Amino acid sequence: MKPHQIQIDEQGRLKHFISIEGLPRDLLIAILDAAQSFAGVGERAIKKLPLLRGKTIATLFFEPSTRTRTTFELAAKRLSADVLNINVQSSATRKGESLLDTLRTLEAMHCDMFVVRHPMSGAAQLIASHVAPHVRVINAGDGRHEHPTQAVLDCFTIRRVKGDLSSLVVAIVGDVLHSRVARSDIHALNILGVGELRVVGPKTLIPPGVEALGVRVFYDLEPGLRDADVVIMLRLQNERMQGTLLPSAHEYFQAYGLTAAKLAVARPDVTVMHPGPINRGVEIDTAVADGPHSVILQQVSHGIAVRMAIMSMAMGSQAAPRRTR
Amino acid sequence: MKPHQIQIDEQGRLKHFISIEGLPRDLLIAILDAAQSFAGVGERAIKKLPLLRGKTIATLFFEPSTRTRTTFELAAKRLSADVLNINVQSSATRKGESLLDTLRTLEAMHCDMFVVRHPMSGAAQLIASHVAPHVRVINAGDGRHEHPTQAVLDCFTIRRVKGDLSSLVVAIVGDVLHSRVARSDIHALNILGVGELRVVGPKTLIPPGVEALGVRVFYDLEPGLRDADVVIMLRLQNERMQGTLLPSAHEYFQAYGLTAAKLAVARPDVTVMHPGPINRGVEIDTAVADGPHSVILQQVSHGIAVRMAIMSMAMGSQAAPRRTR
Amino acid sequence: MKPHQIQIDEQGRLKHFISIEGLPRDLLIAILDAAQSFAGVGERAIKKLPLLRGKTIATLFFEPSTRTRTTFELAAKRLSADVLNINVQSSATRKGESLLDTLRTLEAMHCDMFVVRHPMSGAAQLIASHVAPHVRVINAGDGRHEHPTQAVLDCFTIRRVKGDLSSLVVAIVGDVLHSRVARSDIHALNILGVGELRVVGPKTLIPPGVEALGVRVFYDLEPGLRDADVVIMLRLQNERMQGTLLPSAHEYFQAYGLTAAKLAVARPDVTVMHPGPINRGVEIDTAVADGPHSVILQQVSHGIAVRMAIMSMAMGSQAAPRRTR
Repeated sequence: MKPHQIQIDEQGRLKHFISIEGLPRDLLIAILDAAQSFAGVGERAIKKLPLLRGKTIATLFFEPSTRTRTTFELAAKRLSADVLNINVQSSATRKGESLLDTLRTLEAMHCDMFVVRHPMSGAAQLIASHVAPHVRVINAGDGRHEHPTQAVLDCFTIRRVKGDLSSLVVAIVGDVLHSRVARSDIHALNILGVGELRVVGPKTLIPPGVEALGVRVFYDLEPGLRDADVVIMLRLQNERMQGTLLPSAHEYFQAYGLTAAKLAVARPDVTVMHPGPINRGVEIDTAVADGPHSVILQQVSHGIAVRMAIMSMAMGSQAAPRRTR
Repeated sequence: MKPHQIQIDEQGRLKHFISIEGLPRDLLIAILDAAQSFAGVGERAIKKLPLLRGKTIATLFFEPSTRTRTTFELAAKRLSADVLNINVQSSATRKGESLLDTLRTLEAMHCDMFVVRHPMSGAAQLIASHVAPHVRVINAGDGRHEHPTQAVLDCFTIRRVKGDLSSLVVAIVGDVLHSRVARSDIHALNILGVGELRVVGPKTLIPPGVEALGVRVFYDLEPGLRDADVVIMLRLQNERMQGTLLPSAHEYFQAYGLTAAKLAVARPDVTVMHPGPINRGVEIDTAVADGPHSVILQQVSHGIAVRMAIMSMAMGSQAAPRRTR
Repeated sequence: MKPHQIQIDEQGRLKHFISIEGLPRDLLIAILDAAQSFAGVGERAIKKLPLLRGKTIATLFFEPSTRTRTTFELAAKRLSADVLNINVQSSATRKGESLLDTLRTLEAMHCDMFVVRHPMSGAAQLIASHVAPHVRVINAGDGRHEHPTQAVLDCFTIRRVKGDLSSLVVAIVGDVLHSRVARSDIHALNILGVGELRVVGPKTLIPPGVEALGVRVFYDLEPGLRDADVVIMLRLQNERMQGTLLPSAHEYFQAYGLTAAKLAVARPDVTVMHPGPINRGVEIDTAVADGPHSVILQQVSHGIAVRMAIMSMAMGSQAAPRRTR
């Protein structure tokens, strides 16, 4: 079963949230609209809604990421759910228990939702295809495949800043090859009908044949940024630096690092985005990261609203739970 | 003072929960009955009761066990308590503070209950004998001594599946020598008046003189399983493999691993149990673990109901807390 | 800006809580009075107040301290706040993210308060000077500078036991040089107008010129303790033992360890305090730590009441939060 088939139930409602690829346009827009209604919660004096009271949400992170785990934890707590952070390194998997046994055990504890990050592409879908009918799975990043909640928050941010997407030029810059954020963003922006979508980076970091996804490829930064309305910078993984794919961080910054000078060829009201955490002086200059075009911190805030929307929509389609087996 | 004297107050109510040995039959049945009423909570849409609202429960695990700690944490949260997970490795004990000082400090923070796992037999009782009058202690496993909540959930599961215990043949199979689960199960099943109780395993892993506890000993699997109504498989600790007590995992599985073929000599409606996490292909075959006789996952679900029952009963006998000292 | 300027708003209310130095007397007394009203909460059956419901409090500990973190966490939970424990070792700072970026990110997640412990003196103030207007910062210990909540709980304890401070002789004994507790205590007791304030310890552990803070210096224990109403023992950091500042732990105990015999020169109703965790047989004898003069465990209880008071007062001055940037 393809990811986009498993994540939607017979009534067309969100069941799991595994991938942007194959997500129907109206469902993506429904998520963005729901996130809009949650965006105000973080700014209230009492940041708490009772929507998921009495639900148990387990975060299963097989790759460390304090930032992403924290936003899911906060989103769940603000929806009044009980959150269980499973430290996968120290858990029963170390005692030789299989992943599937761990999942079955958590189900038997009446967990309602798993938020999964895994270094293996396809892990979230694999898990979703094996859970009990009442359990929901949210993909918090699987290998190089997808990071779908990040793509939704990126689209939410663009829509909030720019309004209509159909006339926008969006450039995604950096290590596209290894980036699940880039893959999810490309799918999401295509679904929403963005005007023009570009990927920009050195040949070694652009996936061969990426044009098939409906993007224009630029190997040089300046033409890639020219007249862009939105620039999405990707994080450069430090571990790539040691390999042969890349010159030094310094040389990379010279060629592809975003500075105010280089940004001058974009539209005057260009919006600069980054999924974080940022490497200042590697893929982005401090003056740009903290400058007037940057919406990097808004992205973080929107990430919580978007995750609240996705969690409550997926749980909203939950069948009445039954006894396991 | 014997464990069974410390855990009951003057009115005969549960105060701490340290050991099955010496637990009065009517109190054990009262716990099982209370667990019955909590068993439905996990299947509700809102899995939350206000019974322990405003209480603080600290889990103190001197031995790692994500699974057991998690079930206690979930049980406490579903009773609306505040839970404090004390990571004993990184806490003040590392700064040279004694265990007793750590306990006194947690008491002074107005913790109401300690859930304790410790590699030393007798640790939970030692702690219970030193805490302030309003503090309750639950034994989550102490050395090779007891794991009393596991025994209650095992009995709860058997009672739920089989009804009356007085005519049942129950076989406990594996490393009985090192197993606190086996010890607690033997005591609990005797208290409840099980029909026939057997322990099955290689001579090196059966405690000498165990017959005194009212069990029949079998050194071979087939006679041990014959006509059994319930088979409780024990987890084989990987670390035992390195020693001289055991042949290889492969040889062990040949002799004592539970397969469908071997299970054929038991009653046709035999129930197979395991405290988890299971070692597939070591003490139990996958076909049996996942097969129609297995109730291993129900045990996990019941574990939460049983712990909710024990926590709320112990706290129910709590005297009005007073200022420490 | 001095610490005492940053922590008070235009209306004279507590905004952050960074240092005792420079804290106005009436504000310190207001905190003590508020703590008085919270002191009963820990002894109630339901230890929960809704004052900070819907607020998010992040603990940021760059130095490990289970005890202090736990008291802040309990204080926050008893005020009904959501608590986020950021494990700084494993967080994004390890991926090369700067401290400031971590803070900005937590702000963007709509955290309302940071509780900060850091090995660098001035860290809490630095953070307070950079946060968004609606965010509050509590110093949980910064290098050798201050540990202001400890000083408040010490004063609270003295006031509760002794009443009026103006006629009391208070002796602070031990490693004054490296102690942020000593520094904060000295400032707090001076602000409250204690009768006589002494520091007692070997020359190598008394800061040169400390007399300027209004204290009498004693290099010998007996004259330092003579007629004292209150003795505050400081924790001796084990790591100091390796250096040249100190003789062995045994010799230290002979000269400066508090025993019942040495305490005999103090007032008959002397009160003995220690911030914990205690090193029995190093700076204090077990008979004294557990004896009738000791209020060490009351200090722990008071620590929660004091932190509830400080957190709720600081949050009470919170401006309506706005979108970050």
